[in-house]
Amino acid sequence: MLSPFFKPKGVAIIGASRNPHKLGYGVVRNLKDYRYQGGIYPVNKSATEILDLPCYESVAEVPDPVDLAVIIVPASIVPKIIKQCGQRGIKHTIVISGGFSETGEEGKKLEEELKRVANEWDVNFIGPNCIGTIDTHTPVNTTFVTGMPESGEIGFCSQSGAMVASVIDWARGAGVGFSRIVSLGNQVDVNETQMIRALHEDEQTSVITAYIEGVSDGKAFMETAQKAAKDKPVVALKGGRGESGARAVASHTGALAGSTEAYEAAFDRAGVQQASTMEEMFDWARALAWQPLPKGKNVAVLTNAGGPAILAVDALEKAGLNLAELTSETKDYLKSRLPKAASVSNPVDVLAGSGPGTYAVALDALLTDKTVDSVVVIQAPQDWFLPASLAEVVGEVAGVHQKPVITSIMGKASVDEALKILHKRKIPNVAFPERVASVLAAMVNRKEWLDIPQQTTERYTDFDEDAVQKAVLENDWNSLLEEYGIAFPPEQFAQTEEDAIEAAESIGYPVVVKLVSESVSHKTEVNGVKLGLRYAEDVKSAWKEIKKSAESADADMEGVQVQKMLSGGQEVIMGLRRDSQFGPMVLFGTGGTDVELLQDVESAIAPLNRLQAEKLVDATRAGVKLKGWRNQPPADRETVIKYLMRLSQLGDDLPNVDELEMNPLYVLPDGQGAFAVDVRGTMTEDEKITA
Amino acid sequence: MLSPFFKPKGVAIIGASRNPHKLGYGVVRNLKDYRYQGGIYPVNKSATEILDLPCYESVAEVPDPVDLAVIIVPASIVPKIIKQCGQRGIKHTIVISGGFSETGEEGKKLEEELKRVANEWDVNFIGPNCIGTIDTHTPVNTTFVTGMPESGEIGFCSQSGAMVASVIDWARGAGVGFSRIVSLGNQVDVNETQMIRALHEDEQTSVITAYIEGVSDGKAFMETAQKAAKDKPVVALKGGRGESGARAVASHTGALAGSTEAYEAAFDRAGVQQASTMEEMFDWARALAWQPLPKGKNVAVLTNAGGPAILAVDALEKAGLNLAELTSETKDYLKSRLPKAASVSNPVDVLAGSGPGTYAVALDALLTDKTVDSVVVIQAPQDWFLPASLAEVVGEVAGVHQKPVITSIMGKASVDEALKILHKRKIPNVAFPERVASVLAAMVNRKEWLDIPQQTTERYTDFDEDAVQKAVLENDWNSLLEEYGIAFPPEQFAQTEEDAIEAAESIGYPVVVKLVSESVSHKTEVNGVKLGLRYAEDVKSAWKEIKKSAESADADMEGVQVQKMLSGGQEVIMGLRRDSQFGPMVLFGTGGTDVELLQDVESAIAPLNRLQAEKLVDATRAGVKLKGWRNQPPADRETVIKYLMRLSQLGDDLPNVDELEMNPLYVLPDGQGAFAVDVRGTMTEDEKITA
Repeated sequence: MLSPFFKPKGVAIIGASRNPHKLGYGVVRNLKDYRYQGGIYPVNKSATEILDLPCYESVAEVPDPVDLAVIIVPASIVPKIIKQCGQRGIKHTIVISGGFSETGEEGKKLEEELKRVANEWDVNFIGPNCIGTIDTHTPVNTTFVTGMPESGEIGFCSQSGAMVASVIDWARGAGVGFSRIVSLGNQVDVNETQMIRALHEDEQTSVITAYIEGVSDGKAFMETAQKAAKDKPVVALKGGRGESGARAVASHTGALAGSTEAYEAAFDRAGVQQASTMEEMFDWARALAWQPLPKGKNVAVLTNAGGPAILAVDALEKAGLNLAELTSETKDYLKSRLPKAASVSNPVDVLAGSGPGTYAVALDALLTDKTVDSVVVIQAPQDWFLPASLAEVVGEVAGVHQKPVITSIMGKASVDEALKILHKRKIPNVAFPERVASVLAAMVNRKEWLDIPQQTTERYTDFDEDAVQKAVLENDWNSLLEEYGIAFPPEQFAQTEEDAIEAAESIGYPVVVKLVSESVSHKTEVNGVKLGLRYAEDVKSAWKEIKKSAESADADMEGVQVQKMLSGGQEVIMGLRRDSQFGPMVLFGTGGTDVELLQDVESAIAPLNRLQAEKLVDATRAGVKLKGWRNQPPADRETVIKYLMRLSQLGDDLPNVDELEMNPLYVLPDGQGAFAVDVRGTMTEDEKITA
Repeated sequence: MLSPFFKPKGVAIIGASRNPHKLGYGVVRNLKDYRYQGGIYPVNKSATEILDLPCYESVAEVPDPVDLAVIIVPASIVPKIIKQCGQRGIKHTIVISGGFSETGEEGKKLEEELKRVANEWDVNFIGPNCIGTIDTHTPVNTTFVTGMPESGEIGFCSQSGAMVASVIDWARGAGVGFSRIVSLGNQVDVNETQMIRALHEDEQTSVITAYIEGVSDGKAFMETAQKAAKDKPVVALKGGRGESGARAVASHTGALAGSTEAYEAAFDRAGVQQASTMEEMFDWARALAWQPLPKGKNVAVLTNAGGPAILAVDALEKAGLNLAELTSETKDYLKSRLPKAASVSNPVDVLAGSGPGTYAVALDALLTDKTVDSVVVIQAPQDWFLPASLAEVVGEVAGVHQKPVITSIMGKASVDEALKILHKRKIPNVAFPERVASVLAAMVNRKEWLDIPQQTTERYTDFDEDAVQKAVLENDWNSLLEEYGIAFPPEQFAQTEEDAIEAAESIGYPVVVKLVSESVSHKTEVNGVKLGLRYAEDVKSAWKEIKKSAESADADMEGVQVQKMLSGGQEVIMGLRRDSQFGPMVLFGTGGTDVELLQDVESAIAPLNRLQAEKLVDATRAGVKLKGWRNQPPADRETVIKYLMRLSQLGDDLPNVDELEMNPLYVLPDGQGAFAVDVRGTMTEDEKITA
């Protein structure tokens, strides 16, 4: 059990202070003001009383019961205090003190000492360099930050203390409730992955949210997060997504960063929903905590005005959702109940003069309609009815149906009362109608993720392990891939012009002739590839031209590769890249020389089962095209899927393979296979040294 | 002068009411409560007094001075009232009454009658079916909506009354000031374009904002908006961008919608900045109204915490902005002034304990640094200093530099006072740090638009007008394009196998042979194109195969076109499309059979000058590739630019050409020209009937 996840019977505040400007005062004040019911024991050598509570000279003197310590003393004495806690029998601590690894080498040493002592005395701790934790249900507030959110269902952990302080202040203003809030600090003992596990197990938490700059161990994170996501929505905001941001994170946390693509692929696989802003994270969290998931993508919009509904509809469409086609029963019913000029097609417009009664009738009809998966209720400001009445009505009507309802009661000055009621009745409200789209899309995405059938990952064994090891040692990528079941077009190496012609004739025209040179990686750039050669004459002149090109590029020419020329197929790229944090990743997309320009490459964490491989393929334009496009016949998608699964296993099997890329992989029409045409690879640095 | 743009000496409220639930009461109340200083004259047959103001039986009896009437009477008598206003010498009116074209055929007739009478009596009017107007400076509030924003620099006009009501309520809550707010209603007399012109001329307005569902006249709108945008930022929120939204708009306004692409191209050309949400529109408007434009894209971020800064940096990078590389002078200076552990590289982190004094020193240094074009100031909530003090400091320091400063003083519960001060000092603040990116990008975009050099559009005259007319009449697209200077590969039509071979020999191998058939539009789909034919034998078998394909597709084969085969170039698509609202549009992008899949086509409103043509080309991946990509040599971009300008003139010259598309246009290496390979076109329906 981690420090913030039990109900402490007594809390010692070591480094408590009488000075209201000190953190050690704030912690005592918060414990007291926010109604912690157990013993509050300030520890301070020179004071006798803080905030009317008697002080103790040392933790040894603190009376029973005491089972949690909050430490706010200079960094240098934190290890000693941890030892004292251990001696006093306090196993759970929160170290707020800064001055550790975040300040440089000396601090780093101190942090190691802290870790050692805590291990020795079996004391667990959050931090150091954090701003504390909040449990709104017990309640226990060990932070020094003014204010505490209402109690609710959202758990939040953060690798930035400032984000915690911002969330506390924002949550109070917005009236959004939280179950637990944890500032993780330097994560020396407890990290984000353990915290997600703890929030998963916590009964008060129904949605897990996290601000994450980096994870401590990619694989462990994915496993824990995925397990949690099966039971509770997990929403993350990732700091350091761009290049500059990632650099800032690296200097901020020093963690092994991992690439942005890898984080996206890992979150996606684990069912962690990545919000793009803090506001979005909590928009989603509220909806996921409060409302049932929609069965599908069909949304009904109920409004009292055209303009705001149109903005919502635009945003819904952009987010991939549909407007429900209402049944004629619903439309007839609405026609009989709504004002004459009202629109009874979706979006349903009850017009400006309509109040909560009309909304109630229409909302009930829409929620009853079987074509409707969710309802958005919009109210533009009007002067005839209290916004609060609509809030009550929506809460009541929505409560008897099993479909999500999101409101946008617009305006700011006039809607405070309504928002309070909506939050009490667990209806998420957004101030601007466009924001409903992101919320509903997140709910649909979660539903779809939960619906993915379980499928185990096949393991292939139809290869010769010795041959694989040999290929790895020799950096012989072609043989390696062949062992893993990936086919190559028939080809022969030729060192002379005559050999090249002979090779072409044994393979059969048309052929491709390619420069073989260690010093050239992009062969097309030095004009080292000749296509569509149909006669011995063509091969002859190709040899000459390639030789000339190699010379003018100052490249050593070892010979040429003569290959069967493939035609009538599609060129894709398929590859493997090893992420520092999440391990091997498989990538797939539109191949050829325009890979960077077209930006049609997606990636997924290895290994892949069939569904995951299909999802990866279908996420690209190249994958769409494989199914047949215009006059192009359907290509051998099945072989592509098989190759992806096999390549992903290769990545998993052989940790020394750092990068491996087939570009192009040439995919023939359905049933005719796919052939790796050009393969490049690199080994990890370690391997290069040992090899 | 339009109704809401003069200072009325007296206002008659025709249809004033004693009943607080009626609109006619709200208008009188708002004029009175929001301190209108002129005469307020309620007109009501049966009342003697409304809100302590004497009532008049008819507008004829209203005393001098009176020069504005607000009309809230049943639709059927509005024309009569307009006539009475004319008789009484009131030239300016605002018709709030609904019940006109928005309700159906009968209402439409009434609206025509209203228009006729107003013309006859030379009375101008806003509406009908609107919610009134606000002038915060005079002040005059003719709406019935509770509440009025503070006075400020932002002018807002809206084609949705609900959006006006929402903005009023939101502006009050957010403390954002407005100059004028106008609800346009059915726009029978005054439309959005006239209103933008009026806001352009209005001295109190420094930024124009608009909610637009459709424009009344595309060309007039563009001209007016562009003129306005030269002097004042114009920010628009367009309702009905998606397919469903556009359908909703069509049924909502009945206006000629125009395509989403056309609106985007038109806004872009006119310098109208399109916001994606209401919140974004006013984020931008505040910044554009209050702060100078940045000289470039280099942003410095000043913060007291890592996490929020990282989120801002991520968003800035995504929006195409850069982190400024601070000079070593700045860094040294900051090092000497900031806490030891502070980060003096961008983002500059003064750490949690620093207050407004430290911020002042650092902000001043950053604004002085010549590498910095703008500064983002972030403050995560802290307990040691008043957020209001930072607000004062930022306002003061920013005021002495000529660079934009945007703040994100985070939190909600604790920052009200700070926000008031920031708004007073004209520093735009956003609640979440990510939002600074969209704001700064909008400012940079405006700067770049203003910096586009003036360039006239060349007009070509080197063609034979008679030949053009003949080509149009005969729907002979190839001849038409040739007249406009667009080249075709040498080719001949052949009706027999023998003719085809003869043609190939006179053109010179290799050649392409293509099916000619009226009934087939996508020739590759019926296998009607044969490429790379090098010998008479090849042409022979091509003829046979094409014939067979045409037969099996049930297509009439008139013959084949034999063309010179082009190679070593790039395939693009170039075309013309006529938008119902904005007229001819030129499109350009990646060509071939994958146009729809690749989605790399951009469009611009015709005609194009050189800069506009270059911008269109450079906005696509095809355009990037034209400059040379990997082993592909630079293509003849100059010819592409020339063709685009010429094609755009064609669109302008020949209103009967509805669509015209070259796909592919084959672009050879630099200096070698570009050739239209496959051309399709359609005439407008009208022309088909007359031809």
